[in-house]
Formats: sequence, C-alpha cells, structure tokens
Amino acid sequence: MKKITIVGSGRVGESTAHNLAKAELCREIMLIDIKEGMPQGTALDIQESAPIFEFDTKLSGSNDLAAMADSQMVIVTAGVPRKPGMSRSDVLDTNLAVIDGIVDAMLKVAPQAMLLMVTNPVDVLTYAVAKRSRWPRNRVFGMAGVLDSARMASFIAMETGFSVKDISAMVLGGHGDTMVPMTRYTTINGIPIAHFMSDDRIERIVKRTREGGAEILSLRKTGSAYDAPAAAVASMVDAISRNRRQILPAVAMLEGEYGLEDICMGVPVVFGERGLERVIELPLSDAEAEEFRRSAEHVRADLARLRG
Amino acid sequence: MKKITIVGSGRVGESTAHNLAKAELCREIMLIDIKEGMPQGTALDIQESAPIFEFDTKLSGSNDLAAMADSQMVIVTAGVPRKPGMSRSDVLDTNLAVIDGIVDAMLKVAPQAMLLMVTNPVDVLTYAVAKRSRWPRNRVFGMAGVLDSARMASFIAMETGFSVKDISAMVLGGHGDTMVPMTRYTTINGIPIAHFMSDDRIERIVKRTREGGAEILSLRKTGSAYDAPAAAVASMVDAISRNRRQILPAVAMLEGEYGLEDICMGVPVVFGERGLERVIELPLSDAEAEEFRRSAEHVRADLARLRG
Amino acid sequence: MKKITIVGSGRVGESTAHNLAKAELCREIMLIDIKEGMPQGTALDIQESAPIFEFDTKLSGSNDLAAMADSQMVIVTAGVPRKPGMSRSDVLDTNLAVIDGIVDAMLKVAPQAMLLMVTNPVDVLTYAVAKRSRWPRNRVFGMAGVLDSARMASFIAMETGFSVKDISAMVLGGHGDTMVPMTRYTTINGIPIAHFMSDDRIERIVKRTREGGAEILSLRKTGSAYDAPAAAVASMVDAISRNRRQILPAVAMLEGEYGLEDICMGVPVVFGERGLERVIELPLSDAEAEEFRRSAEHVRADLARLRG
Amino acid sequence: MKKITIVGSGRVGESTAHNLAKAELCREIMLIDIKEGMPQGTALDIQESAPIFEFDTKLSGSNDLAAMADSQMVIVTAGVPRKPGMSRSDVLDTNLAVIDGIVDAMLKVAPQAMLLMVTNPVDVLTYAVAKRSRWPRNRVFGMAGVLDSARMASFIAMETGFSVKDISAMVLGGHGDTMVPMTRYTTINGIPIAHFMSDDRIERIVKRTREGGAEILSLRKTGSAYDAPAAAVASMVDAISRNRRQILPAVAMLEGEYGLEDICMGVPVVFGERGLERVIELPLSDAEAEEFRRSAEHVRADLARLRG
Repeated sequence: MKKITIVGSGRVGESTAHNLAKAELCREIMLIDIKEGMPQGTALDIQESAPIFEFDTKLSGSNDLAAMADSQMVIVTAGVPRKPGMSRSDVLDTNLAVIDGIVDAMLKVAPQAMLLMVTNPVDVLTYAVAKRSRWPRNRVFGMAGVLDSARMASFIAMETGFSVKDISAMVLGGHGDTMVPMTRYTTINGIPIAHFMSDDRIERIVKRTREGGAEILSLRKTGSAYDAPAAAVASMVDAISRNRRQILPAVAMLEGEYGLEDICMGVPVVFGERGLERVIELPLSDAEAEEFRRSAEHVRADLARLRG
Repeated sequence: MKKITIVGSGRVGESTAHNLAKAELCREIMLIDIKEGMPQGTALDIQESAPIFEFDTKLSGSNDLAAMADSQMVIVTAGVPRKPGMSRSDVLDTNLAVIDGIVDAMLKVAPQAMLLMVTNPVDVLTYAVAKRSRWPRNRVFGMAGVLDSARMASFIAMETGFSVKDISAMVLGGHGDTMVPMTRYTTINGIPIAHFMSDDRIERIVKRTREGGAEILSLRKTGSAYDAPAAAVASMVDAISRNRRQILPAVAMLEGEYGLEDICMGVPVVFGERGLERVIELPLSDAEAEEFRRSAEHVRADLARLRG
Repeated sequence: MKKITIVGSGRVGESTAHNLAKAELCREIMLIDIKEGMPQGTALDIQESAPIFEFDTKLSGSNDLAAMADSQMVIVTAGVPRKPGMSRSDVLDTNLAVIDGIVDAMLKVAPQAMLLMVTNPVDVLTYAVAKRSRWPRNRVFGMAGVLDSARMASFIAMETGFSVKDISAMVLGGHGDTMVPMTRYTTINGIPIAHFMSDDRIERIVKRTREGGAEILSLRKTGSAYDAPAAAVASMVDAISRNRRQILPAVAMLEGEYGLEDICMGVPVVFGERGLERVIELPLSDAEAEEFRRSAEHVRADLARLRG
Repeated sequence: MKKITIVGSGRVGESTAHNLAKAELCREIMLIDIKEGMPQGTALDIQESAPIFEFDTKLSGSNDLAAMADSQMVIVTAGVPRKPGMSRSDVLDTNLAVIDGIVDAMLKVAPQAMLLMVTNPVDVLTYAVAKRSRWPRNRVFGMAGVLDSARMASFIAMETGFSVKDISAMVLGGHGDTMVPMTRYTTINGIPIAHFMSDDRIERIVKRTREGGAEILSLRKTGSAYDAPAAAVASMVDAISRNRRQILPAVAMLEGEYGLEDICMGVPVVFGERGLERVIELPLSDAEAEEFRRSAEHVRADLARLRG
C-alpha cells in the first residue's frame, strides 16, 4: 500500500505506526490526533529510528483529518480509552461522536479507503461505521479476535512450555466478556490442545483470555493494553498489504452467516488485497452455537443503545 | 545472551524490551520498576504479542531489584524523565540516588553483568557507575551517540531523499548541547555528505541534531523521546549479543584516548561479546578537536557537580 | 550455537549453510567435502553475500573431517544423491561407509555434538549413527517430516489459495513411499482441512506429498530437491539454537513410543537446546495406526539390509 | 511489484528467485529456461520452502519466453556460464544471440518492463539491450558493482575483524579486470579504510576484489559464483521495489556523465520505483580518473567486437 493513516496517536496508534514502519507495509504513514504537536512528535520519534531499523517508510503527523487524503487504509484508534472500573460499553457515546467525524472526513478525502476499527466497543463502532458510510463490508472491519487469540496462544505457551510458533488459537464472538474461545480449533502444531492439557486447565486459560484486557489494565492501572493490540493490527495490515488470503478472526458485518445479519461481530474471515474478502462459516457444536448466540445477544444489546 | 534486565519500565524501558524480544536477542527479559504492577503489566502486554511476532523470549516483571539475579546485562532507563524547560543536568541528583541503588544491588546479585546506561545525564551517570562499581570499562557504558547519529542520519535522509540504508552518521562528545557531529565521517554510501549538500544545509542539520531531544519534547509536551532511544539501545545489544565487533559511538570511560582520562563521554567504540571491547581513536581536525575539548569541559563541569 | 559443521557441500549442504548464515543461527559455519576446493569456494561465495544480507556469521571450508572440531552440531548431507530411477534404499551402501567415517571422526574431535542426518535413506542412516556412536537419542536425529509437511502445506496452499502462514501439516512415518500424512492433524488456522476440501482432493494431496521428492527429480532430471530440504534443516536448527521447545516431526530413535523400539522413524518431537528433548505420542486412529505399522515394517526391512 | 520474470534458471537465477521470494519483493515469480522441466522443478522446490520461510510469493516455471507477459521486471541470467580459463568476453557471442531473443520477446509481451542484466559480459550485454530495445536508460541496467563492492567489503571485514554492517565499499568501472575500486569512498562506519589499514593491505584487497570472480571459479572448478551475485541482484530489486532511492553502483548507459556517452559501465546510480532514476557523478582524483578512463577503453574495445 502507498499510504495508511492512523487516527489517534495514543499508545495503540503509536505502536501500530512503529510496527507498520518497521515492516515497511506501506510507503507513507500519517498519524492524526487532536492533541497539538503530539502526532507530529510521535511521527518524528519513530522516523528517527529508521536508520537503525533500516526502513524507508515516511511518517508524518497532523491535527487535521484532511491529512487522510489518498490513504488506502484508515486505522481508527482514536477515542476515550477504557479506564479501571469502566466497561467497554461505557466509553461508547464519546467514541461514537469521534468516529462519525472520521467517517464524514473519509467520505470527502479518502472515499475508497478501507477502515480498520480498533477503538472499543469495537463491535458497535464497526457497525456504526458500516451504517454511516454505506461502504461494502470488505472495506469496514474491526480488530478483536487476533488479539484475543494471541492472548490465548500466549497463555497456552506459558502453561505448556511449547513455542508460540506452534500454537494456533481461535477466538470468535463479541469482543469482551462474551467472546467465544474455540478450544476445538485451538491447536499445537495442528494437534488439538485437549491432547496436551486437562479440561480444567483449558477452562482456566479460556477465563484468563476473556479477562485479558482487564488483567493488563489492573496491573498497569493508568492505561490499558497496547503492545499486543498494535501487534494484532499489524498482522491484519500485513495480510491485506501482502495479499496473503490469510484466515484471521475479525469483526465483520454478517450477511446471513451463522444465521445472523445486520450485526458486526468476531468471525473468521479471509484477508487479502481487497480487504475482508470473505467470511468463513465454521461448523459449531451445540455448546459453541449457544455461546455464539449469547455473544450475539450481548452485541445486539449494545447496538440497541447505539440506536437509542 | 540468556537474561537481560531492564531497570525502569517507562516508555524507553518498555520499547527497549519489545525491541529485544522481537529480535530474540536473549532468552529472558526482566523488567523492573518501583511502580507496583507496572513492569508486570508491561511484560505481559509484550508477551501477548509473541504469537504474532513469533518470538519465544520470555518476559516478566518485578518491583524488586533482586530480580536482576543472573543477568548478563542490565540496561538502566530508570530515573526522573526530562520535562519541558529542564536541562539534562537538572535531573542529576534524583537519578544519582536511583543509580547507586542499582549498582549496589548488581554487586550482590549480578556482579559479572554489563551495565548499559540510558538515563540522563548519561555521561555523568555512566561515570558514577564506573566509580561506584569499580568494574572495568568494557562492562560499563552508555547510550548516546547511536541515537544522535540516527537522528542526524534521519535528517540527512529527509533533506536528500536518499534511503536511510545508505547513510552513515557519526556523533561524538558529550550527549547534549555540546555533542560533536563529525560531518567529515558522515557519508551517503561512503561518499561524504559535503558532496550532496551545501555547508549551510549541513550546518542546519547539525543544529537540529544537537537539539533533537528538545524537538521531540517540545512537540510531545508531556514526554520525551523513546522510540528512537529504544531502537538505539537495541542496536548496541545486538552488536554485543551477536558478537559483531561493530563500531558504534557510545559513552565510554576514557583512559588516555583523545588526550583525556577519568571522564566518560561519547567516542567510537567496538562492541563485541565482551562488551565495549576497545575505543577507536579518530584523527581530529583542529576545529573538531576544539569542539571535542569544549564538550569534555562541559562534561567535567557536570562531573564536578557530582563530586560536590 | 558457536559452531555448526555441515558435511557435504553439495546443493543441500550449501543451501543449508546459506540459510543458517542469513539467520545468524551460529557464529561459525564449517563446510566439509571431499572435493578439493569446493567447500572452500562455496563458503567464500556465501561469505561474500554477507555485506548485502548483513550477517556476521563466519564461513569456511575444508576437505578434512578434523575441521569439525568443537562443533556443537554436525549436519550430514554427504553421500551419493538419488538419481532418476533410483530408490532411496539403492543409495544405502555407499552412504553407509561415508556416515561411518563421519561418526568416527566426531567421536575424536566433536564427541559432544548433535548429529542431524539429512542423507537418504534417512531413517536407516540415523539408526546407523545411533548404533555406531552409542549417543543418547537427544543428540542423533534426522530430517524428513519437516520437509514432507512443508510440501503437503504447499500443496494445500496451492489448492485452496490460502496463505502458507495459516497451514499446519503433519507427516509421520518413514521417509519415502510409506510416509504417513496425518490429515486429521493438518489444519488451516487450526481448522482441520476436511472443512475446506473433499476427501478426494485430500487424497490427491497426500499422494503428491508421498511422491514429492520424485516429482522434483523428474522435473529437474539431473538433480533432486535441495531448496525445501535445506529450509527444513534450517527450521530444525532454529528450534534448537533458540531453545524454542517447538514440536516438529523428525526421525527419532523410538524407545517404546508407538509400541516400537530399536527403530528410527518419523514422529513428532520437541526440539530445544538439548536437541531432541522428547517424543510426542499422538493418539492414532485404527487406520493411522495401520499405516504407521506398515511404514515401520518398511523401515525394518531397510534396517535388515543394514545388518545384512 | 506484481510480477518479476527471471530468464535463466541456472544457479544465479535460482538463487535470485529464492531471495526475492523469501523477501516477498513481488507477488509472483516466473522462472524461464530452455531446459525442459528445469525451471518448473526449481520453481516447485522453492515453493515448497514457503511454509517454512512463511512467504506467500507464487513461483512458476516455463520453457516459453511468452510467460514473461505482464512482468514489471525481467532479470536476465541466461547464457553460457564462464568456465575456468575463459574470459568474460569469450562468452560474448553466444550470449548475445540469447539476449536478442529475450529483448524481442519483451517487446511483444512486456514492453514496459525494466530489464536487469546479470549475464556476462554485463557491460556489453546491457549496451546491446539498450540499443536493440531503444528503451530509456532508467529501464535497462546491469548488476556488477553491488557484487564487486560486497566482495570488497567482505575482504575488509575478514582483514579487520569488523562487522560487515559497518563497511561500505564502492567499486566502479567495467566489470572485470579493469574495475575501479574507489578506496577513498570505502569506509568503516563512515571512516575511510585508510585509517584502519596500510596502503599495502588495501592494495591486496583491491587486487583480490578484481579477481573475485576468478577466485571462486578456481576453487569450485566446475562453476562460477552465484550466492553473492544473486544476493546483489536481490538488493537492487529491493531498492526498486521498495522505492528506496538508494545509491548503488550499477551498469548504466552514460549520457555525458564522467565525460562519456554511448557506453554502459559501472557508476553509482539512484534506484527507486522508476528503476535507475539517476546517475551520481563523483569527483575523481587524477589517478581515479585515469583508471576509470582505462576501464572505459576496455569496455569500448568489447563494444567494438559487438558491432564487428
């Protein structure tokens, strides 16, 4: 890709910018934030690491959304972060206004770009973007499952001592307490984890995954996670930019898949140069289907607040 | 290396940890900070990116300096950061007490480790460590010139449009206003930059390099640089860990080189598995020697405050 | 690792050397071959690419097995290559003599090194090394399954269009016509391939995998495969050198696992810094167990020729 | 870039293909050779390493030049290789016919592609392509100086023990005995090598560089260099594909630079997305200018044979 804009130059936005630059996933990165000087300072700090990491990606910063012009992708990390004691839904209203402004600006200066939503509540905000922009679903999607899966894989690596290179985890559903870790499709070098650990240990890992964001927040106290989220965003951009046709879990608008429509939630999708190229429909066991259904209900409740 | 400890899990410490982990420069990283939960939270956030970046380095956090035990290297980023309006020297007294505590702890639990100083004023603090620890100079050194050189190389790339891969810059002397950018040894694919730009433009770049830290600070307002500093630290660790015998500028105890002794300042050194393996003595022009002498005086003035 | 020796500087040996050097998996690589000048020429050609790929690994060549001295690992690619029309077993006798010489030399100059067998018939030659050296099984193993699995994963990627990053394949058993592709443990992002393709297509891929070596040979005519084999070797060395504790299929001496002992064949093992750290025993279906049994018989028949 | 074709699937072509694929410098690589099955076999062998090196570049092989269709770049490695006792010029006539066929095919199926000449004598063949195709010089260039410079840098690293990451070497002029190593622009971390070694040692290194190809040939006996040449080609493609605007020495059509025109020889050029974007004219000392002039004469003598 030529140009990617990241709106929001807080910790997730910044770390995302550094990841994209180091991997040279695009020629130019624009960081936008309302805080005067901040995106410029961050862009410059990262740029000054270029001779060491040997990347030729150009970074710049702006306080004006019009600087998104001609981007092929806009990554949205802007919004109020989640603070200790806040639920993901609590931050909805403020963030909704921010997101509307971004979509309106994109419609003017980058109407063909893809939008990758990172701000929480990600399911709801992805849906809000889809509705406001009327863009097709291949160009509007959100980051959740890659992060949740990475966390689950990390916990499995910690528990078993095996290399993270071996572990493939899959987390679907809404991002938050109702996420659906698919332990059946979670493997160590292709072998289902049930071969390596008891149901109890798996259950503990599932619980820890569900509470993964809160765990970081409770340790850091003044800020939520950003290293792993930014890594997750980078891997989605990599799949698109290199046209990998890679299967990753992501927040997508459902159009009948899993018996659902007009809802955005986490499902396995294929990323390639056209963005979210298709949704993969996995066979679910009864228990999984029930969990997935409950997760969808939770998302719908949030969407109702959106419309209200 | 087996284990590297980073003392100080603020932005520089954290970004350093992520760089070392992604490059798998050691098997284990320990992050230490006095803020309860914070190094643990940061270690976990980075660890959760491992399945995405595919590194098997293990990270953990602690609030206890004893967790440095058995490290081969300790990287010190702890201390009061420089705020707008503060000089690097202003932060000396507070940081000195912090550093003394670290050295004393190392003498107990990791007496054979190398110490890489990042906290400012880096020349003075490196000197303070050398004196207190009585370690040989190959194991006590500071980061300054790699960062200053990376900044200068970035500015040259911006001005000329050439790849950062082509540009080799060399900044010596004290870290701060009296640094000595060696434009004669600053090249684009081996060709001195004077071939590509006028003296005026070179002078502007030298000035901007000298004020590189302040530029980031004045943009960011609430925090100083960390992306490029952490990249600089990583490249020093890489040279040591992979035994490259690479020439990098670093803060070293001089033992007669450049006509100076009993002073720590930025000179070109060779990094290999034994740490700072030797100091390279470059022939200086009269003007360069004069700048270098003035820089040394400035450092000596800071050292006098140390003794006072 | 400090030093790795590769015995046999033909195409597999050379490509292996280049892979190890580019990834800086050790400090020093020694290439040994009986052809005068050849390992020296190859080492020098690779060394001359170092400034471009930026690796500091040192390579050298020798015609004397004593140059293995102080290696931590010896990779054996020496022997008569398989020519069109030849079976893997046909090349046994010649290669056995070569391997005996290598083991005897190692017992003198590198008695603590690991030996990674690449020469075919790999199951038999790994067994021969184990018997002659009396080394424990963690230090004697062979490359087969990683290559077979990589081939199978490639074919799945070609058929489905999905990224190779998503595909995890597992091939066990003897290397050759009786290899046992474990389709049940072959997944696309954790999802069994049966979800993505019909039994017929899977069967075609299994067949092509079994004949993977012959396919390359029949196309190239004058030489067998080396690019993918050398990549497979590099990934095993990476797992050991970086102490990943990664599960990879490899030729191992069985000590009761899968109901077999005193036989070397392809099973999933864990590689870490001590080499082959343990054998993973997977539950097999009746059909898989039957295939595995037949594969073992085939290997035993080859071993009988060895003893004969 | 989308598609790169490599004509000639011998050792240099193959190693080039593997380098481009591993670095994912394009989406698709086509290998063409007249030997039936051979480019197909090589493409497949490399493709089968993709799951291990995690690249999604697609490789295929063909015996038909029409398979170049829609390539953005064609890399020519086809032709008779140099055998022991042969000069680079000896192989001219045979290779000229091969190259004419390639240009004619490109004019039909890939008339907008760049052509990167690797076959020797590279100065003459690059010139022949330029004349026959009438393409502008940004799209017709040859590989020589990057390889010669890498060799010189390797020899300097061997002599001094410094990291290859520090060394920048520059070799200009005709490829062969009259190449012009520019020791003045050859630096270790920006410092001219004269600081590190005596004139005698530098002279020995220059001599060895001049004879670098012959040294490999005399060791290998049955084949010339390919690992370092293929690395050199990859770095040129990288600079173009990533639009680095990097200065690299390359064979270029001179249009008045260095007082020469209507001749192709090695000069420093800038590579970016439009290919060879411009020639850098370095100030030469009298001695350098004289060497350069003699080198040009030598190339002109070869060109005369071309016209004859």
